Amino acid sequence: MRSEVISVGTEILLGEITDTNASFIASQLPQFGIDLLYVSQVGDNPDRLREVFARAWGRSDLVFITGGLGPTQDDITRETVAWMVGEADQMAVDAEQERILRAMMERGGRRMPEQNIKQAMLIPSAQPLANPRGTAPGWWVEKDGKYVCVMPGPPQEMTRMWEHEVLSRLEKLADGILVSRTLKTTGLGESTVDEMLAPLLSSTNPSIGIYFRSDGVHARISAKAATREEAWRLIHPVEDDARRILGQAVWGSDDETITGAVGRMLRDQRLTLAVMESATGGAVGSAVTDIAGSSDYFVGSLVTYSGQSKVDLGVQPEILAMHGLVSQQTAEAMARAARERLHADLGLGITGIAGGDELEGQPPGTMHIALWDGDEMRYSHSRYYQGRAVAKSRAVLQAMSLLREYLMARAANAEG
Amino acid sequence: MRSEVISVGTEILLGEITDTNASFIASQLPQFGIDLLYVSQVGDNPDRLREVFARAWGRSDLVFITGGLGPTQDDITRETVAWMVGEADQMAVDAEQERILRAMMERGGRRMPEQNIKQAMLIPSAQPLANPRGTAPGWWVEKDGKYVCVMPGPPQEMTRMWEHEVLSRLEKLADGILVSRTLKTTGLGESTVDEMLAPLLSSTNPSIGIYFRSDGVHARISAKAATREEAWRLIHPVEDDARRILGQAVWGSDDETITGAVGRMLRDQRLTLAVMESATGGAVGSAVTDIAGSSDYFVGSLVTYSGQSKVDLGVQPEILAMHGLVSQQTAEAMARAARERLHADLGLGITGIAGGDELEGQPPGTMHIALWDGDEMRYSHSRYYQGRAVAKSRAVLQAMSLLREYLMARAANAEG
Repeated sequence: MRSEVISVGTEILLGEITDTNASFIASQLPQFGIDLLYVSQVGDNPDRLREVFARAWGRSDLVFITGGLGPTQDDITRETVAWMVGEADQMAVDAEQERILRAMMERGGRRMPEQNIKQAMLIPSAQPLANPRGTAPGWWVEKDGKYVCVMPGPPQEMTRMWEHEVLSRLEKLADGILVSRTLKTTGLGESTVDEMLAPLLSSTNPSIGIYFRSDGVHARISAKAATREEAWRLIHPVEDDARRILGQAVWGSDDETITGAVGRMLRDQRLTLAVMESATGGAVGSAVTDIAGSSDYFVGSLVTYSGQSKVDLGVQPEILAMHGLVSQQTAEAMARAARERLHADLGLGITGIAGGDELEGQPPGTMHIALWDGDEMRYSHSRYYQGRAVAKSRAVLQAMSLLREYLMARAANAEG
Repeated sequence: MRSEVISVGTEILLGEITDTNASFIASQLPQFGIDLLYVSQVGDNPDRLREVFARAWGRSDLVFITGGLGPTQDDITRETVAWMVGEADQMAVDAEQERILRAMMERGGRRMPEQNIKQAMLIPSAQPLANPRGTAPGWWVEKDGKYVCVMPGPPQEMTRMWEHEVLSRLEKLADGILVSRTLKTTGLGESTVDEMLAPLLSSTNPSIGIYFRSDGVHARISAKAATREEAWRLIHPVEDDARRILGQAVWGSDDETITGAVGRMLRDQRLTLAVMESATGGAVGSAVTDIAGSSDYFVGSLVTYSGQSKVDLGVQPEILAMHGLVSQQTAEAMARAARERLHADLGLGITGIAGGDELEGQPPGTMHIALWDGDEMRYSHSRYYQGRAVAKSRAVLQAMSLLREYLMARAANAEG
């Protein structure tokens, strides 16, 4: 099945918003074995909209359209779709949709401007797609063996509609289901993972792809079958093999983040964590608390951006004087101080240079990270610079990797 | 001048990467008065590439193409452009480009695989565009009064090439330059700004647009003229009028962030800032330290995620017991503790609920923010929920707005 995506909106072509709907839809289609061949963005211009819609209707079996469903004169996606499928004359207000629309406006305490009535219009080939997060319903059009899926532009409305209204319809269309399991690793290079998994790589269903990503190398196992269950039956033995081969390098799978994986391990091992961070400015604490339920194990973070604040919170001034603000010794002292001051099981200390100029002879991107459990000290450092934002996010990843290694070793010791 | 953008790459259509090049280019074109009418994304497929390129060449005066310039068999953008402008037979290795390519590979300590030689190819109509961040040069093609600008897909290579090679060529093409000044406001609604600026809105050059954005209402003043200088001469008097009308509501302009504006005021007023934050988990400290030079005024942040850690760092347990973790009184006690513990001029305290369930009868999204200077206490609160990430970033904005109001009032008092 050949599909394409059209994103409608002049603000996209002015560069005021980035079109994330298209990449969201693109990432969802492989599971249904639906090929995406084209993505187009076009402004709210009647002629160009007709041109782009007509071409899509001619060459694709399934057309996804987002945007242009608002109540104003500029919003002409509905009218253009009606024209495209030859039902321009048959567009009319649907009584049920009108009732829903008026009820929604009244609940918001607003009187409905009469021009908004166009949002309740349907054509004979269209089923409405409910949109509880906005006023514009979507359309699911079936005609001449082809399909059009029309959704609103705001991403939170679009993704909600996708999950609740569109997915089930796509499952019925798919002549097979593609399911993937992504194993996420750390500490191994792309070619090493490739070599290790070589015995599995000749398989075509499931197939395995190796990808280098910002949080490590990923191995994606994908299987196609008539049903989801059957696809999973193909994946499971290969996943087991891959996990056995890669061993402890696998820190998580699919949508899991390394921060989430570390959080799970902290909770399982009933350990609490405290941080003292400087160069990251609070980014480590912020990442840890992005995980729901992190209050089970996260006590807090002392963001000590000045030398004096480090001393105020328990770093010995002699260490700073002797080794400098950016050093292994200072990171270790910060780890100790965090653990002690916040009464946690584990203390993590991070010092470095996130941006700007050299400090104490060390270039931007230098990070010293230490982990202290009251008995054992672990340390890691790195030097990598592509701007402040990258330096901070890499430091967060590196801190999580150090924590993970420690927690893996601890769990192994407990078992052994 | 009618332009369009084509982004080439199968990984875009698989949803593995979001195409940010297109929105970057889109945001750059208005200054040259160049209209962007279409954006297309297409995979590395010879037939579809030809189809999309040929249509663009037929309907547009200027075509931007990114991606598909790598050394592999899959990378066929160069070949397809040569075909599109009728010079497929004339594509040949350029001696100078070959020299640059080999020198670059050698500097990296690698021997150049012979297939990479295709990256040194040119056609008669193309000028090479230097790419010091990668191996693939771009092409600037002029033919039959039309233009094609071919750039590599990796964003850091593309934007570097844009700034150093493409901008100057576009300036020559433009029949006028459009310049904009955006004034950013806080505390006023969209319709209020609209009413206040009504006397200026009838002007067409410069024109004024009012936009609602996540960090407040923006007023954008845009002027078109033959030269950049002339455009600025049109903007300046209108900008002066708008600033006089909007007064203290304007916190910054153009690319400035409110965090940067507050940082500037702290530096000017020689004040230091300390934070105690819980629900934001370190996001306030991280945002403040995203600004280069923030160590001049930022001392640190105490991320106290647990009740005990608040007490450990100076919040009186009676306040927590009497008013709860999420309350005005606790935010105020946190502001006092931050200022005292970190020896800063100003203490900012933030407590709230960033996600998950209700706490102490208050819904997710509730934020209490207090600012203490040792003499005066300011307080603000809000309740807005669209998920954890939004709750955190809105709390950061709100904290910065509170700080800004304080610093404005303080500066006014000092003057008066």
